[in-house]
Amino acid sequence: MPSEYIKREKNTSVTDFTSSIHFDKRLYKYDIMGSIAHVKMLQRQKIVSEEDGVKIIKGLKKIQATIEEGVFEFSSALEDIHMNIENALIELIGDVGGALHTARSRNDQVSLDTRLYIRDEIIAILHLIASLQRNLLSLAKENIAVLMPGYTHLQHAQPIRFAHCILSYFHKLQRDFERFRDCYSRVNVNPLGSCALAGTSFDIDRGITTDLLGFDRPCENAMDGVGDRDFVVETIFCIATVMMHLSTICEDVILWSSNEFGFIRVDDSYTTGSSIMPQKKNQDVAELIRGKTGRVYGDLMSLLTVMKALPSSYNRDMQEDKQPLFDSADTVKSSLTALSKLLKGIKVIIHTTDIEKKLENSFSNATDLADYLTKKGMPFRTAHKVTKEIVSYCSGHNKTLRDLSLSEIKTFLPSRYCDKAIFDLLTIKHCVDSRTSYGGTSAGKVKESLSNAMHVMSRNEKTIVTLTMKVQKNMKRVLG
Amino acid sequence: MPSEYIKREKNTSVTDFTSSIHFDKRLYKYDIMGSIAHVKMLQRQKIVSEEDGVKIIKGLKKIQATIEEGVFEFSSALEDIHMNIENALIELIGDVGGALHTARSRNDQVSLDTRLYIRDEIIAILHLIASLQRNLLSLAKENIAVLMPGYTHLQHAQPIRFAHCILSYFHKLQRDFERFRDCYSRVNVNPLGSCALAGTSFDIDRGITTDLLGFDRPCENAMDGVGDRDFVVETIFCIATVMMHLSTICEDVILWSSNEFGFIRVDDSYTTGSSIMPQKKNQDVAELIRGKTGRVYGDLMSLLTVMKALPSSYNRDMQEDKQPLFDSADTVKSSLTALSKLLKGIKVIIHTTDIEKKLENSFSNATDLADYLTKKGMPFRTAHKVTKEIVSYCSGHNKTLRDLSLSEIKTFLPSRYCDKAIFDLLTIKHCVDSRTSYGGTSAGKVKESLSNAMHVMSRNEKTIVTLTMKVQKNMKRVLG
Amino acid sequence: MPSEYIKREKNTSVTDFTSSIHFDKRLYKYDIMGSIAHVKMLQRQKIVSEEDGVKIIKGLKKIQATIEEGVFEFSSALEDIHMNIENALIELIGDVGGALHTARSRNDQVSLDTRLYIRDEIIAILHLIASLQRNLLSLAKENIAVLMPGYTHLQHAQPIRFAHCILSYFHKLQRDFERFRDCYSRVNVNPLGSCALAGTSFDIDRGITTDLLGFDRPCENAMDGVGDRDFVVETIFCIATVMMHLSTICEDVILWSSNEFGFIRVDDSYTTGSSIMPQKKNQDVAELIRGKTGRVYGDLMSLLTVMKALPSSYNRDMQEDKQPLFDSADTVKSSLTALSKLLKGIKVIIHTTDIEKKLENSFSNATDLADYLTKKGMPFRTAHKVTKEIVSYCSGHNKTLRDLSLSEIKTFLPSRYCDKAIFDLLTIKHCVDSRTSYGGTSAGKVKESLSNAMHVMSRNEKTIVTLTMKVQKNMKRVLG
Amino acid sequence: MPSEYIKREKNTSVTDFTSSIHFDKRLYKYDIMGSIAHVKMLQRQKIVSEEDGVKIIKGLKKIQATIEEGVFEFSSALEDIHMNIENALIELIGDVGGALHTARSRNDQVSLDTRLYIRDEIIAILHLIASLQRNLLSLAKENIAVLMPGYTHLQHAQPIRFAHCILSYFHKLQRDFERFRDCYSRVNVNPLGSCALAGTSFDIDRGITTDLLGFDRPCENAMDGVGDRDFVVETIFCIATVMMHLSTICEDVILWSSNEFGFIRVDDSYTTGSSIMPQKKNQDVAELIRGKTGRVYGDLMSLLTVMKALPSSYNRDMQEDKQPLFDSADTVKSSLTALSKLLKGIKVIIHTTDIEKKLENSFSNATDLADYLTKKGMPFRTAHKVTKEIVSYCSGHNKTLRDLSLSEIKTFLPSRYCDKAIFDLLTIKHCVDSRTSYGGTSAGKVKESLSNAMHVMSRNEKTIVTLTMKVQKNMKRVLG
Repeated sequence: MPSEYIKREKNTSVTDFTSSIHFDKRLYKYDIMGSIAHVKMLQRQKIVSEEDGVKIIKGLKKIQATIEEGVFEFSSALEDIHMNIENALIELIGDVGGALHTARSRNDQVSLDTRLYIRDEIIAILHLIASLQRNLLSLAKENIAVLMPGYTHLQHAQPIRFAHCILSYFHKLQRDFERFRDCYSRVNVNPLGSCALAGTSFDIDRGITTDLLGFDRPCENAMDGVGDRDFVVETIFCIATVMMHLSTICEDVILWSSNEFGFIRVDDSYTTGSSIMPQKKNQDVAELIRGKTGRVYGDLMSLLTVMKALPSSYNRDMQEDKQPLFDSADTVKSSLTALSKLLKGIKVIIHTTDIEKKLENSFSNATDLADYLTKKGMPFRTAHKVTKEIVSYCSGHNKTLRDLSLSEIKTFLPSRYCDKAIFDLLTIKHCVDSRTSYGGTSAGKVKESLSNAMHVMSRNEKTIVTLTMKVQKNMKRVLG
Repeated sequence: MPSEYIKREKNTSVTDFTSSIHFDKRLYKYDIMGSIAHVKMLQRQKIVSEEDGVKIIKGLKKIQATIEEGVFEFSSALEDIHMNIENALIELIGDVGGALHTARSRNDQVSLDTRLYIRDEIIAILHLIASLQRNLLSLAKENIAVLMPGYTHLQHAQPIRFAHCILSYFHKLQRDFERFRDCYSRVNVNPLGSCALAGTSFDIDRGITTDLLGFDRPCENAMDGVGDRDFVVETIFCIATVMMHLSTICEDVILWSSNEFGFIRVDDSYTTGSSIMPQKKNQDVAELIRGKTGRVYGDLMSLLTVMKALPSSYNRDMQEDKQPLFDSADTVKSSLTALSKLLKGIKVIIHTTDIEKKLENSFSNATDLADYLTKKGMPFRTAHKVTKEIVSYCSGHNKTLRDLSLSEIKTFLPSRYCDKAIFDLLTIKHCVDSRTSYGGTSAGKVKESLSNAMHVMSRNEKTIVTLTMKVQKNMKRVLG
Repeated sequence: MPSEYIKREKNTSVTDFTSSIHFDKRLYKYDIMGSIAHVKMLQRQKIVSEEDGVKIIKGLKKIQATIEEGVFEFSSALEDIHMNIENALIELIGDVGGALHTARSRNDQVSLDTRLYIRDEIIAILHLIASLQRNLLSLAKENIAVLMPGYTHLQHAQPIRFAHCILSYFHKLQRDFERFRDCYSRVNVNPLGSCALAGTSFDIDRGITTDLLGFDRPCENAMDGVGDRDFVVETIFCIATVMMHLSTICEDVILWSSNEFGFIRVDDSYTTGSSIMPQKKNQDVAELIRGKTGRVYGDLMSLLTVMKALPSSYNRDMQEDKQPLFDSADTVKSSLTALSKLLKGIKVIIHTTDIEKKLENSFSNATDLADYLTKKGMPFRTAHKVTKEIVSYCSGHNKTLRDLSLSEIKTFLPSRYCDKAIFDLLTIKHCVDSRTSYGGTSAGKVKESLSNAMHVMSRNEKTIVTLTMKVQKNMKRVLG
Repeated sequence: MPSEYIKREKNTSVTDFTSSIHFDKRLYKYDIMGSIAHVKMLQRQKIVSEEDGVKIIKGLKKIQATIEEGVFEFSSALEDIHMNIENALIELIGDVGGALHTARSRNDQVSLDTRLYIRDEIIAILHLIASLQRNLLSLAKENIAVLMPGYTHLQHAQPIRFAHCILSYFHKLQRDFERFRDCYSRVNVNPLGSCALAGTSFDIDRGITTDLLGFDRPCENAMDGVGDRDFVVETIFCIATVMMHLSTICEDVILWSSNEFGFIRVDDSYTTGSSIMPQKKNQDVAELIRGKTGRVYGDLMSLLTVMKALPSSYNRDMQEDKQPLFDSADTVKSSLTALSKLLKGIKVIIHTTDIEKKLENSFSNATDLADYLTKKGMPFRTAHKVTKEIVSYCSGHNKTLRDLSLSEIKTFLPSRYCDKAIFDLLTIKHCVDSRTSYGGTSAGKVKESLSNAMHVMSRNEKTIVTLTMKVQKNMKRVLG
C-alpha cells in the first residue's frame, strides 16, 4: 500500500497537537496549484517523465474536485494539507505520485501556498476598501450641504461640512490601499525551489514556476525563502491599520447615533434590540467592528512574538502563522463589508438651523473672530487673547458672539477693528465657506476634493483590475 | 509682557502631567524649520509683511542657536516645544512674534514636526541597514569556504555554506530597507495648512511650504492631516520588523558562541564578564538586541492601542505617539550599530574536518542519498522511505552512510541503484556544491548571489544619497 | 588602585549599549539596603569579620548620602548601579570593600533590588487607588440625588443614579487593589543567596537576610531565584488593569464634558485651551490618561516578549525588564493622582427636569412597562414584545409612554393590564427607585452600597498601614 | 407561534456578522445551569409560579439533552446561545417559557455563563499544572545523580544537578498555580440579578442563586456586574504566564535535543520527521508550544485592546472576549498535556565523565577557585581578579584549572593560598555538592528541595479537590 510511505504511526494525542489540517485545509487550492506548476516544471526539465507528469496533474485535479465536492476525507494523522494531498495522490495513482515531491520540501511548499493565498486575499481586501471608499464618496456627495461641529478633543472646535469629515475617512483608507499594494510586491515572490533550506541538486528551473504562478521573481536565497514570515507579519499589519481606521469611523458612528448627538440614523436592519429593553436600537455592527480591532491587534502581536528570536531557517513555531493570518483576513473582509453596508443605509438627520444655533452657542466661530482681527492687522497671538476675553464675557452674559452689540465689542477692541461686517463673517455658514485653503472645509474645496477623490478611485480600480487579471490568468493556466 | 499671552496659570501638577516638553524638545530643529517655511509663505502671500517676516525668521534662528548652545530654558508651564519657542520668540522680538501662528494650529504643526523628524530617522536607519548589509557581505565573502550544518528545527538538516546563511540575513534586511522606503513616501506629505482641522480663511499657498520643506505633496484633507498617526505606526512597524530580524541573527550568534556549538568567537570587546564567574564571556550585546525586540514590539502595541477607537480628528491621546516613536528609533539605530560592529569582529572557528565528520554523523547527507535514488528512477517518496531505513540501520550500527559497504547497501536496494559513486556523492563537500539551483548553497550559486547582492547594495546606496541630498538641500534652504 | 578590579576596558560604544546605569541608578537605595543586609548576614556567619563588615556598612551609608546629595558620579563604564556602588566602596575603603560581593552575584542582587523597589511601588499605588476610591465615594455621596441615563451600547437603556455609576468605578478599582495585594505576596520573596544560579559554598544563612529585609520567605530554588521575571510581568499586568479601568472612567468624563452630553463641568485648572481656538476647554487630562493606557499595555507586551523562549536562568535580555516597569509604575501613579484631583473638581450639572424629560423621550422607562405587565401575569417575553409595539406607536406619534391615554393603551393590551397606576410607575424617579435588588440603582440600595464601600475602605486602609509599617520598620532597621 | 417573539427579521449578512452562536454555543451547559438556578429563585420568590417553574426547568433539561445528543439546531438568526435556548424553550413549552427571562438581561446572563465556564477551566488547568509538576518531580528524582552545565547567557557558568534545573521549572509553575487560585476568587462572584445595568424592580433574592451556583458572593454593583471583563483579562493573563514559562522549558528541551548539546533524547513518538530529510527527528511538540506562546500573548492583547476606553457598562465590543478566552484556555490545556507527556518520555543521556571533562574545559569551576581564595582570606573582588588571570593563563596554555601544577599556581598567588587541596575542591562533583546554601544545587539541598516540593504538591492537590467538589456538588444540585 503506497500510502504507508507517508502515514505516521505516532500516538494520536501528539498528532492532534501538531496537526494543522483543521485549519490549513483551506489552502488546498493553492497547494494543488503550486504542485501542478511544480510538476510542469519537472516535466520540462525532464526530472519527471512527460507521462508521469500527466498522471500526477490529472490526479491532482481529481483531488481538487473531490475536495470541492466536499467528499475528501481530511486526516489529522497526515498532519497537514500537503501530506493529505500527496497521500491521496499516491492512493489514487500509485507510487508514481511519490515523484511529486521531488526537488521540493514542505518548507518551500508552505511558504508558496501562503503567498498564493495572501495574494488573493489582498486583492479581495483592495476590492472591499475601494467599495467602502465609493460609498463614502456617495455619502459625502449626497450630504454636501450638511454642516456639523468639527471636533477636537471631542469639543466643538470649528464648524465643518459633514462631507469634509467623510472625506477624511476616504484618505485614511487610501493609505491603507497603498500599504497593501506595497506589501503585495513583497508577497509576490516565488519561494519554490528553496527546498528544505539549501536548494537542490536536481536541475530545476525556478523561472518556469515563477512564470506559471505569476510571481514577480524567485526569492534570492533558499534559506531566506523558507525561514521568514515577514510577509505574513506585514500583511497582518496592513490589516491592523485598516481596523485602526475603521475603529475611528465606528466610534464616530456610535457617538453620532447616541441620543445626545443625534446626527445620524442607522437603518434598523443594522441595529439590534435588547433582550429586555424594548426601545433599544443598538449600534452592534459598529461596536463589533470597533471590538474586532483588538482581535487583529492580537493577531499581529501573536505572530511578532512567534518570530521573536527564532533561530534561522524553518522552525515548527512558524506553523502558528496561519490562524492569525486567516483570522485577520476574515475579520477585515467582514468588517469592511459590514461597515460599507451600514454607511450606505445611514440617514443624516442634522437639522441645519438647530446645529447652527448650537455651534454659535459653543463659540465655534471664535477662531474666525481672531482671524478677522489678524487680517485687520493685529498679531495673531494678541487677537487670540482678545477673542478669549470676548468669549469669556459672552459666556458670562449668556450670549453668542453674534449677540453682542458693536458697543460691547468696542469695550474690548480699538474701534478700527469694530465693524458691522463682523456679524456676517461670524455666521456658521460663512465660517465654513471661508476656509478655502487646499484641503479646507469650504463648499468649493470639498467639491474639488471630491472630484480629486474620484480620480484616485479610477486609479485604484485600474490597480485592482490589473492584479486580478494577472492572478486569474495564471490560475486558469495552471488549474485549467 | 508679551509672554503672558501664552503662559498658563494652570496648577503645576496638571501642567506636569500634560506637558510634553521633556520629550518633544528634541523636535526643536524641525519645529523651527517648519516655522521659518511657514513664515516665508506668509510673506509671499502678504499675510505677514516682508519686514515682520524677516524679524520672525531672525528671531527663530537666534532661538535655534540658543538651544544648540544649551542655554535655552525649557519651561514645563509652556507645555510643549511649540509654545516654548513661540513664547521665546515673542519675548525676543515683541508682539510681532505673535504673527507666526497665523493660519496654523498646533495640530498641523506637531504633525509637521513629527514628519520632518521621521524623515531624518528613516534616512539614518536606511544608512545603518546598508552598513550592516555591507558587513554581512564581507563576512560571507571572507568565509566562502566554510561549511556548517544547515538547521531546520535546530536539528542538522543539510550541510550549507556559512555564507549561505549570512546571505539569508542580507535579504531579510533588504526587505526591511524597502519597507522603510515605501513608508517614507507616506511620511513625506505636508500637513501644514490643515490648521485645527478645517483649513483656514487666510489666503495661504500650501504649495510653497510643500516645496520649501521638500515634501512630495500636501495632504488632501485638513481633518485627515491633523487626525491620523498611521504614518507613525507604520514607521514603528518597519522598525519592529528590523528588530524581529535582528533577534533571529542574535539568536544564531548566541547559539554559535555557546560552548556546545563553538562556531564563532566574538571579539572580547563585545562580550562582558561576570561579577562572580571569572571565566565568563557573555554575549551581552546579542542578548540585549534580542531583548530590545520586546521593547519595540511594546512601542508598536502602545501606539496601536492609543489610536484604537479615537474619535475623528485631533485628540490629546495622540501626544503619546512621540515617546514610543523616539524610543523605537533610538533602539533600532543603536541595535543596528552594535550588531554591525559585533559582526565585524567575529571570527569563524568552524574546523572543516571536524564539522564534516559531525555532519556525516548526523546524517546530514541523507537527502542526497534519497535524491540520488530518485535520479536513478525511484519515485521520490519511495526513495525517502528506503533512505530512512538505511539511516536507521546505520544509526543502530553506529555507522555513517559512507561507512556502509556496497553489500550492506544491497540489502536495502536493488543492485542497479548500488554504485560506488554513492560514496563520493555523499561527501559533505559534494552535498553542498551539488545544490546549484538558483538561491542554492553551492559555491557557484553563493558567489553569484554575493555578486547580485552587490548590485542591490549599489541601488540602496543610490536611494540613500538621493533622499539625503534632497532633505539636506531643503534644510539648508530653510534653516540657512 | 583597587577600582581597576572592576573597571572595564571595553570600547565605549559597547559599554554605552549594554550599560543600564542611566536607568537603574534609581534603584540605589534598594541596592544599598540589600548590600547592608547581606553584609550583616556575612558578619553573623563569620564569613566577613565584624570589623570589615562595619567598614563596609559605613562605606555604603556614606555612598548613599553622596548619592542623595546629588554629588555621586555615576559612570557608564561601570555598567550598572551594582558595579557603580561596589566600585565606589572599594575606592572609599580599599580592597576590603571587595568582600561585599562574597557569596552573591549580580544575578540575585538585581532580582533583590527590583523586588524591594516593586514592594514600595505597590504600596504607593495601593495608597493612590484608595485615595481615588475615597474621592469617588465623596462624589457619589454628594450627588446621591442626581439621576442620569444608564447606557448600554451608548444608548439610553434605563435611568440610573449618577452615584450608581460612580460606585461601579469603585468596585473596578477594588479588584485592582486586591490584585496588587495578591501580587505583593509573590514579589515579597527573597532571592538573595541564589548567587549566580546554583547557590554558594559559603555558609550563608538566607533566613537572616529574609528577616532583615522583611521578606515573607526565601525563594526555594536558586536557578528560579535568578531566572524569572514573572513577578515583574505580574506587577505590570496589575498596572495595566488599573489603566484599563481608568480609560473607561476617562472615556465617560470626556463624553460627559462634551457639548452634546453636558453632564459635568471639569474645573478650568484641569482643562487646557487651544493654540488657535480661543473658546476651547479640552479634557486633556482625561485624554492623556486614556492614551497612556496604550503605553502601559505596550510595557506589558514588551516584557512578555522579552521573556518568551529565553533559555533557563539569567540572560542579559532580562535587563530590559526595568524600563517598562519604571515607566508603567510612574504612569499609573501620575494617572491615579491626576484623575483623583480631576474628579475632586468636577461639578455635576445635570438638570433634573431636563434629564427626566429626555429620559422619557428616549423611552428609558420601557423596561418598566414590560416589567409591570410581567408582574400582572404576562410572560416576560410577551410583555417585551407588546411594549416594543407600544414604543413603536409612541415613536411614530411623537409621544412618550406617559403621554398615552388609557384608551390608546387599551388598543395594545387587554384591559386588566390597563391601569392609571402605570403613569406613576413610569416616572423616571419611580423607575430608578423601584430597582431595589441587591446592587441596584434605587436610593436605598445605593446608600447601602455606599455604606458597604466605606467598610471596604477601612479594610483597604488597614492593609496599607500594615504593609507600610512592616516595610518602613525594615528599611529603618537596615538603612538606619 | 411563540418563537416570533424572539426571531429577528434582520438581513442575513448583518446577523452573520453580529451572531456569536458559532462560538458561544460551547457555553450551553453553563447557560442552562444559570437559567435553572434563576428559575428556582424566581419560584421561591413567587415571581414565577411553582408550576411554570417546573415546566421551564424540565424544558431546559430537555434542551440540554438535545444539545448533548448533537441534534439541536443552532440558528445564526437567533444570534447567541442565550436566545437559541430561550427560543427553543418557548417552542417546546409555549409562551410560559417567556417567563424565564424575567428579572434578567443577556448582560448579566453572559457574564454569568462566562464565569461558570472559567471556573471549570481554571480547575482543569490547575489539574494539568499539578500533573506536569508531578512529572517534573519524577524526572528530577530519577536523575538526581546527573550533572550538567549550569548556564547563564547560554554560557557555561557553574556545574549544577540536572534535578536543580528541573526543580526551577516546578517553582515557576507553582506561582502560576497560585496566580490562578487568586484569580479564581475574583471570577467566582455572582453577576446574576444585575440585569441590564441597574438591577430590577422584581423582588429577587440574589443570595439564592449565589448559593445554588456555588459562588462566593454576589457582585456589589449592577453596572459593574455587566460592564467589566477584567476577570476574563486576568484569566488570560494567568494563562499567558504559564505559556511564558512553558516557552522557556521548551527552549531548553529544543537546545538539549540538538546535535550539539545532546543532553536528552525525546521519545520518537514525540518528534516528527521531515518530508524530504529522512534522518530528521524534529522537536515539533516543543517548538509548537513555544510558538503557541505568541498566540496566547495575542489573545491577551486582543482583549486588553477591546476594553480600552470603552464607555461604562455593557457594549457589544465585549462579545469579542470569548474567542480569545476559549482559544487561550484550549491552548494552555493542550500545551500542558503535550509537554507533560513529552517530559515523561525523555531520556537523559548526559554522560558523566564526558560532561565533567567539558565542564573543566569551560572553566565552570572558576568560581570555586575564587571562593576558595576568599575563604582563605582574600577579599572576593581580589580573588575574582586573580582567578580571571589564572583562567586566562590556562586558556592560553590549553589547560584546565586542575591541570595546573602547584608551581604554576604559585606564580599567581602567595604560597599560603596554594594547597594541593585545591585540586580536589575543583572537581566538578565537589563544586556541585559544596553548594549547600538553601535552594542550592548540592545533592543534599536538591533532595531537601524535592521533599519540600512534595509537600507543596499535597497542598495543591487539596486545593484542587476542594474546588472541584464544590463545583460538582452545585452542578449536580442544579443540573441534576
